[in-house]
Amino acid sequence: MRAYDIIAKKRDGKKLTTAEIEFFIVGYMDGSIPDYQAAAFNMAVFFQGLDDEETSALTMAMVQSGDQFDLSAIHGIKVDKHSTGGVGDTTTLVLAPLVASVGAPMAKMSGRGLGHTGGTLDKLEAIPGFHIEMEQQQFVDAVNRVGVAVVGQTGNLVPADKQLYALRDVTATVESIPLIAASIMSKKIAAGADAIVLDVKVGSGAFMKTVDDAFLLAHKLVNIGEQVGRKTVAIITSMDQPLGNAIGNTVEVQEAIATLAGKGPSDLQMLCLTLGGQMLYLAEIVDSPQEGERLLLQSLQDGTALAKMRELISSQQGDASVVDDPQKLPQANEQMTVLAETEGYVNAIEAEQIGLAAMIMGAGRATKDDQIDYGAGVVLQCKVGSYVEAGDVLATLYSNRTDKFAEAALMVQQAYTICEEQPVAMPLVYGVVSVAGEERYVN
Amino acid sequence: MRAYDIIAKKRDGKKLTTAEIEFFIVGYMDGSIPDYQAAAFNMAVFFQGLDDEETSALTMAMVQSGDQFDLSAIHGIKVDKHSTGGVGDTTTLVLAPLVASVGAPMAKMSGRGLGHTGGTLDKLEAIPGFHIEMEQQQFVDAVNRVGVAVVGQTGNLVPADKQLYALRDVTATVESIPLIAASIMSKKIAAGADAIVLDVKVGSGAFMKTVDDAFLLAHKLVNIGEQVGRKTVAIITSMDQPLGNAIGNTVEVQEAIATLAGKGPSDLQMLCLTLGGQMLYLAEIVDSPQEGERLLLQSLQDGTALAKMRELISSQQGDASVVDDPQKLPQANEQMTVLAETEGYVNAIEAEQIGLAAMIMGAGRATKDDQIDYGAGVVLQCKVGSYVEAGDVLATLYSNRTDKFAEAALMVQQAYTICEEQPVAMPLVYGVVSVAGEERYVN
Repeated sequence: MRAYDIIAKKRDGKKLTTAEIEFFIVGYMDGSIPDYQAAAFNMAVFFQGLDDEETSALTMAMVQSGDQFDLSAIHGIKVDKHSTGGVGDTTTLVLAPLVASVGAPMAKMSGRGLGHTGGTLDKLEAIPGFHIEMEQQQFVDAVNRVGVAVVGQTGNLVPADKQLYALRDVTATVESIPLIAASIMSKKIAAGADAIVLDVKVGSGAFMKTVDDAFLLAHKLVNIGEQVGRKTVAIITSMDQPLGNAIGNTVEVQEAIATLAGKGPSDLQMLCLTLGGQMLYLAEIVDSPQEGERLLLQSLQDGTALAKMRELISSQQGDASVVDDPQKLPQANEQMTVLAETEGYVNAIEAEQIGLAAMIMGAGRATKDDQIDYGAGVVLQCKVGSYVEAGDVLATLYSNRTDKFAEAALMVQQAYTICEEQPVAMPLVYGVVSVAGEERYVN
Repeated sequence: MRAYDIIAKKRDGKKLTTAEIEFFIVGYMDGSIPDYQAAAFNMAVFFQGLDDEETSALTMAMVQSGDQFDLSAIHGIKVDKHSTGGVGDTTTLVLAPLVASVGAPMAKMSGRGLGHTGGTLDKLEAIPGFHIEMEQQQFVDAVNRVGVAVVGQTGNLVPADKQLYALRDVTATVESIPLIAASIMSKKIAAGADAIVLDVKVGSGAFMKTVDDAFLLAHKLVNIGEQVGRKTVAIITSMDQPLGNAIGNTVEVQEAIATLAGKGPSDLQMLCLTLGGQMLYLAEIVDSPQEGERLLLQSLQDGTALAKMRELISSQQGDASVVDDPQKLPQANEQMTVLAETEGYVNAIEAEQIGLAAMIMGAGRATKDDQIDYGAGVVLQCKVGSYVEAGDVLATLYSNRTDKFAEAALMVQQAYTICEEQPVAMPLVYGVVSVAGEERYVN
């Protein structure tokens, strides 16, 4: 077998065998296939695609390139959740305790990564004392005892994805649906998930810019799951504005706590119920996603979810009293309001811009050595559809770096599009894709 | 400007500017753009193509990557000829003296390269004493004095082509018409040609497998020539069997001499008249290619062409008496005939296989350090359309390595397809493409 022939075969639109795909990934990882052949291969895939069998073979070849976690010692069906990017995504902070509160085991491994507001781990570390490092056995025990644990990812998970992604990033081959799908699924499978719920974001702030592309990716993800024996459901959701109101670390933990108390922003609550309902269904706790949603709403309203959050924090050496007194979370010394300059309806809020504003104030990392300022962040006071007068508060900025306020304020102000016309109301959830097919709520 | 953006732009089917193409080639040559980005770029070009302006910009950027020869001290319009591969291509050996014999300056620079039978230089070196090394001034003087000189290529001509071709060869991006066209034209332009006649081969033994692809390449080549101010004509010719009868070094020189005496194989003579007629026309020696052909036929018949061959050989210190006594050329000690096993019509002769048979007997180089055995080669006794009985001689093998006869004989035998049906007669020349448009002789 030769890399050349595999590239030429894909270039000519022919279907690759599993053995060919494995040969390519193994060769790429052991260095016998150089970057330039992998780059040509990726570009050929960009144009010719991979069918479901090929994409599954690629996914599993990538999984086998590194460590794989065995979560079989945890009782029950382990359902994992993944969002394809997006800004202000507080869902994991809410879903981990929420879904666990009604009986599904939540064994969450999370990365740190770069980004506007760090990752889930950074947000949890805003809670005084919270530890995200655990041995494998401790992790298993914690999930079996508490029902939920969130740990930092250890081991060498899917090194082929890291290496391929870095190459795609510099060769203009990121935007390939089968390559995106294999990248996402390989990480979830290597992390030990039995079933997977995917939140595929669509819109200006997301990876997928059109609803059609998002559905294509959703189908690809679900079909891979089917092929490799992991029940998978994908929800297609809007990222035309940040989800919830908070973008930062402390502010997102506060928002998660409010949401777990049934007092969160409606879009965030709704998305958590939708995703959580699917998770409970795949975990076989309920007979339908709708039943799952009802159960979760009950948990939000009767204090069960909030109690599970306290348990989660305590179990990981955090100060659970922050749940009742969020002011104990690290606070910024300074705040500043961003005002509307004109009157009209908020038609759009560019999520990416808001994220960047939070980052320059210290909420995220531009390089992996940057320190995160937990107190820094943005809280939106107006979302899409709001009517504002000139001088109304659009958002509040929090930071310890007052020298960054002016720049951040300008970015937030420019992220808002304010028009005379009232925007057409768009749903948060565009549809659901599962093995049963797709349901589109809008077109 | 970033390589990433240029790759993405081409990937998305957009037209690149000359500045972008120059940036890419300059960056690739100075190492700031790595192989993997060039590989992704080439694959994007494979799928999205390059229009004539882009291909011309690429051609000139490649020309500028190395040395460029200035032939302006040679009187007259310097027309160069290039064949796109093929086996048993004795045309250069014939055309250089033939075209010069009627007054067009022939300043031929030739490479050595690998291949079944070496290159034009190797064939000329089969002539005792023939020197192919000359200083630039000597070369100019020789052409001005004799009308023709053939020298080994010196200097660093189009290093970008060497580097890009080596990359394309291992990334399945050789088969891209604009990349092939830029590669061919850049070398001719860097070598100083004022005008170019191209022999685009089509068929099983050629680079272009279909007539349509060959015409596409021909148009591309002519359009590049037009864009960069070099009059260019392309002739599309068949390579469904070797051209002429001889494949080797001594045997091809003998065949060239016979052709220059008006006694060569009809297909070789016809192609030389067709290409030579176009060369004379572009050199502005005649008013039409047809007039050029008549002039050349006259030269073959009245001894003028053969006299020019003697002059060429003498001018380069060779023994011109080989023209009258070809047995003075290096001969193989042994010969062997290959016989037909069945009766029927020769329907096809796989040129590649015949070339390989010549090579394993010593006629060519597999690696650049291999020594060529000038006497080794194959002479075909039957070509497509011949009727043979079992036991008739198909071809004669010449070699000093009798241990290779059995293998070579089998290859030659297998290269012949013999069928009951008489093959449909196909023309040697499929058509001509010039700025005036295309003429197709068959479809």
